[in-house]
Amino acid sequence: MVHTDYLFFETAQRQEFLRITDKVAAIVKASGVREGMVLVSAMHITAGVYVNDWEDGLIEDFQVWLEKLAPAGKPYKHHQTGEDNADAHLKRTIMGHQVIVPITAGALDLGPWEQIFYAEFDGQRRKRVVVKVMGE
Amino acid sequence: MVHTDYLFFETAQRQEFLRITDKVAAIVKASGVREGMVLVSAMHITAGVYVNDWEDGLIEDFQVWLEKLAPAGKPYKHHQTGEDNADAHLKRTIMGHQVIVPITAGALDLGPWEQIFYAEFDGQRRKRVVVKVMGE
Amino acid sequence: MVHTDYLFFETAQRQEFLRITDKVAAIVKASGVREGMVLVSAMHITAGVYVNDWEDGLIEDFQVWLEKLAPAGKPYKHHQTGEDNADAHLKRTIMGHQVIVPITAGALDLGPWEQIFYAEFDGQRRKRVVVKVMGE
Repeated sequence: MVHTDYLFFETAQRQEFLRITDKVAAIVKASGVREGMVLVSAMHITAGVYVNDWEDGLIEDFQVWLEKLAPAGKPYKHHQTGEDNADAHLKRTIMGHQVIVPITAGALDLGPWEQIFYAEFDGQRRKRVVVKVMGE
Repeated sequence: MVHTDYLFFETAQRQEFLRITDKVAAIVKASGVREGMVLVSAMHITAGVYVNDWEDGLIEDFQVWLEKLAPAGKPYKHHQTGEDNADAHLKRTIMGHQVIVPITAGALDLGPWEQIFYAEFDGQRRKRVVVKVMGE
Repeated sequence: MVHTDYLFFETAQRQEFLRITDKVAAIVKASGVREGMVLVSAMHITAGVYVNDWEDGLIEDFQVWLEKLAPAGKPYKHHQTGEDNADAHLKRTIMGHQVIVPITAGALDLGPWEQIFYAEFDGQRRKRVVVKVMGE
């Protein structure tokens, strides 16, 4: 059994992290899959999907840290094409662009603190995440 | 065919990397799946799961490198909640928190040097990894 | 339905990034799977597989950036075994060693700019990537 759905995001800020666990759980429920896996994957290359803590301080720590590891505003080669978002490509690489969540007994099989996040690094325009459910 | 199992870890050290290839292989064997995939995913957000070399020097290199990229003991915002492990959240993000291993002819389809590791960054307490096998 | 194939690479340069989207698409087509997922995973631990932009400037940015985060030629412990490629293990960890691509209506379900790349960090010898297709 395979079920496909998409989530759409248009963030107010250029960089914004959004918790999407409930949206993914709703798609899994609609799929009817009781045992299997769900893939949650950004379809744009300046956004990520990751699993970590739902705590505002830590989210800020992630953002400060990414800015240090992959700073904006440097003379990236990519910018010679007219783009200005090379750092967004690098940042999303650190965070990862997809996760697979196991489905057990009809629900997301997540640990007590695991939450799924969408990490936007070049927002303020409509972007898409694919959610692919597979199982029995 | 879907089969679910869990691995539990309580490391003696706060940070410790453990090879878990054989444990995953045993679960795959028990599942009866001959062709498919197995997801191995940390259920705690200060631990990772990765595939790399089983060589003690390299494991030490990874740990020194992670300490440089995501140092402990900095004034992270997350610590205002009473936690002291923000660096563990960052380190596990670099290493990744899950891997998928293909199953071919009833065995893990790994390259000659590929080994699966559990990377604990905030241990000394009981933690869990989900192993989800799917296939035929 | 499960289908397995392998891609082989022997790059001219020690470090080289190759676009492999078309090769993966051809394997998916040959598999007959119309709905499902395909795992694309490096079988060597000094190479990665990632999804990002097909733009030469950005690829150069990635390589400059990785050299900064995980430089070659440092006194890594791993080199005491006679190896000289510890940085390749670290670099591939940043980029990731595998991706899962959803298959929808018989084709790779990728966003407009998503391309699959093989990232070689210790080439000039024959290496392998496993492509595992699963679905209906």
